[in-house]
Amino acid sequence: MFAEIITIGDEILIGQIVDTNSAYISKELNKIGVKVYQITSVQDDRTHILQAFEAAKNHADLVIVTGGLGPTKDDITKQTFCDFFDDTLVEDQTVVENVKELFKKYQLNKPLPANFLQAMVPSKATVLMNLQGTAPGMWMEKDETVFVSLPGVPYEMKHLLQEEVLPRVVKRFNRPFIYHKTLLTYGLGESAIAERIADWEDSLPENIKLAYLPSLGKVRLRLSSSGNNEKNLRESIDLRMVVLRELLSDVAIGYEAETTIISRIAHILNQKKQTLSLAESCTGGALVKEITTEAGASSFFLGSIVPYKTELKTKLLSVPASLIEKYTVISIEVAESMATNCCKLFSTDYAIATTGIAGPTKGDGEDEVGTVCIAIASPSGVVSEKFSFGNDRYRVIEKTTNKAFEMLLKEISKN
Amino acid sequence: MFAEIITIGDEILIGQIVDTNSAYISKELNKIGVKVYQITSVQDDRTHILQAFEAAKNHADLVIVTGGLGPTKDDITKQTFCDFFDDTLVEDQTVVENVKELFKKYQLNKPLPANFLQAMVPSKATVLMNLQGTAPGMWMEKDETVFVSLPGVPYEMKHLLQEEVLPRVVKRFNRPFIYHKTLLTYGLGESAIAERIADWEDSLPENIKLAYLPSLGKVRLRLSSSGNNEKNLRESIDLRMVVLRELLSDVAIGYEAETTIISRIAHILNQKKQTLSLAESCTGGALVKEITTEAGASSFFLGSIVPYKTELKTKLLSVPASLIEKYTVISIEVAESMATNCCKLFSTDYAIATTGIAGPTKGDGEDEVGTVCIAIASPSGVVSEKFSFGNDRYRVIEKTTNKAFEMLLKEISKN
Repeated sequence: MFAEIITIGDEILIGQIVDTNSAYISKELNKIGVKVYQITSVQDDRTHILQAFEAAKNHADLVIVTGGLGPTKDDITKQTFCDFFDDTLVEDQTVVENVKELFKKYQLNKPLPANFLQAMVPSKATVLMNLQGTAPGMWMEKDETVFVSLPGVPYEMKHLLQEEVLPRVVKRFNRPFIYHKTLLTYGLGESAIAERIADWEDSLPENIKLAYLPSLGKVRLRLSSSGNNEKNLRESIDLRMVVLRELLSDVAIGYEAETTIISRIAHILNQKKQTLSLAESCTGGALVKEITTEAGASSFFLGSIVPYKTELKTKLLSVPASLIEKYTVISIEVAESMATNCCKLFSTDYAIATTGIAGPTKGDGEDEVGTVCIAIASPSGVVSEKFSFGNDRYRVIEKTTNKAFEMLLKEISKN
Repeated sequence: MFAEIITIGDEILIGQIVDTNSAYISKELNKIGVKVYQITSVQDDRTHILQAFEAAKNHADLVIVTGGLGPTKDDITKQTFCDFFDDTLVEDQTVVENVKELFKKYQLNKPLPANFLQAMVPSKATVLMNLQGTAPGMWMEKDETVFVSLPGVPYEMKHLLQEEVLPRVVKRFNRPFIYHKTLLTYGLGESAIAERIADWEDSLPENIKLAYLPSLGKVRLRLSSSGNNEKNLRESIDLRMVVLRELLSDVAIGYEAETTIISRIAHILNQKKQTLSLAESCTGGALVKEITTEAGASSFFLGSIVPYKTELKTKLLSVPASLIEKYTVISIEVAESMATNCCKLFSTDYAIATTGIAGPTKGDGEDEVGTVCIAIASPSGVVSEKFSFGNDRYRVIEKTTNKAFEMLLKEISKN
């Protein structure tokens, strides 16, 4: 069984927004055994949308369409559905009531006539009630292919997918079991990994696929397979992963989804009842954002300070001005002082400190763009390292973030 | 003239990564007058890739393909190019040299045999030299359609696009001028805006398209058009935007690209030579990350503190424990104290403070998930407000971020 995702909206094709919906939908479909054949982004154009619908019908049993459901004139998905299914729009009373309810709940002014346009739906559609917004979802069928239309606003799409779409897909289709497992590694390149695991890779059976996913400072290795025997499939992949993890024991930190590097850090610190704080200069909040994005950080993470201005390193973190004078602000000496004093300030067991120049322009000092010092303070002292991370601002911040967490994990794993 | 983007990789179709490359490429192509007809993501599968190439050839003059160029076995783009163009792989000596250079530059061990596989390219291809990584780009033609292959790693793709691809596209194709202009608004819904600007919208000529882009707490309004007379096109859209901005003067903050809300804030603070600091609790670094993502923040932004643990609000920000006791930690009183003391601690003119519960679980207190207090301290005092932002963690943080910057902008615009 195959699904296809079609996202509608000029904003995607002119690069004004990044399509994050498709990744979410793909992941959720995979979980219930539905493979995605293709993702297609098309313009707000009737002919183009109809063309994409027709093409999708040939590959897929299920077509999920997002976007183009707003109350304004540029949104044409519903009318195009009518064209494709030879149907007309009729008013749905439950949607009318939902619009009224939502306006009452969020204490908005009276709904405008435009808001009630949302209640006009194709007569043959099964309406999927959207309790998070005014645009309903729709479920329609043509020649054995199911078409589902969802709003493009991510949280509305997510709720409708979870509450209305996935349960219906599970009922309607026979699906195999799909299994992916991904090992996270930090600090070794793609080719070097490939060479080390060549024999293991050659021994993989036909039905298990290996993929390499390299990014800044880390490589993810994914095994994928699908079939009807869930138990065998899991065992077969899990076993191969155990061997792979052995082969890469010096660089592997765990399995993705089960483990991000943050959840790995959280797990160890929680177990040891130890705590963490941050002093971020050049990463400007990238570390704290990554930690607090996962719910539950408050059990081990106490807080962070971003002393963006140099003087604040002295004022808030008590880094001696003479130290900055002597070694410059981007030095392992200053990074170490920041980390050590951060532990004291927040009364934590560990602290990460970053100081560097992310660019695009050089600072006042001598250092090239991309020069970064990272220090980790721990109960047994402080370690630090100086890096050159290239001249792309985004890349410098991302590499610093990955490296800082890698260094921290190494320290907290020591005892 | 139309382009099409094809991204290759199972990691996209199983939702393991979000495709950010396509948005970047689309935006850059639009700047030089190339419209993107469609974006298609396909599997690491020979037949599927060939199918997508064939379909793209029918719509597009230029097809940009990303991904599948790594040195490992799951990467099949080059072999598929050979199939499509009836070609074979040959070794390119300049790529061999580049691989050696890169390993020397980054002080890595000797290149492995796998690294030199990158130098094997289709014999008919024009090689696009990748100075950021080992995988070269390729430029090939079939029946008047140009196919370009680029690595999937974002910074390598970006450099190759800028240095090698765009200049060649400019030379090779006649292109019209494409113009988009987007007005940013905060605080009014899509339907309410549509009602207010109905007459203006009806008066738009056929060749100017309006799009509404709603997201949490803000709506973007985009006008788009293309043609050969750049001057007329710009004037026509700029003039209509001036009228639109008038109609929405109470909620419009400026034009996108020229202006984000952060650059608007930066502009005003720089002009007034005033400064900003942050005390973020429930947003956990989302505000500081947004500010420091834009280069140049250090002219007005001094620093941030994330007192994730309640006691730290007292210890670091001197919020009286009795105040927390009396009003609870999620109260406008605590938010105001955080903001006022943050100004003092960092010696800034303005400070934003956030305190709330983003979820998924309720804290120790009485408050529902989604309850958030935001305070803005300024030279003329402190303002604050309490909100209910729903029960979705991501949405609560995003809405708080947008609202906090909206409130700050209002305060700094006052005098």
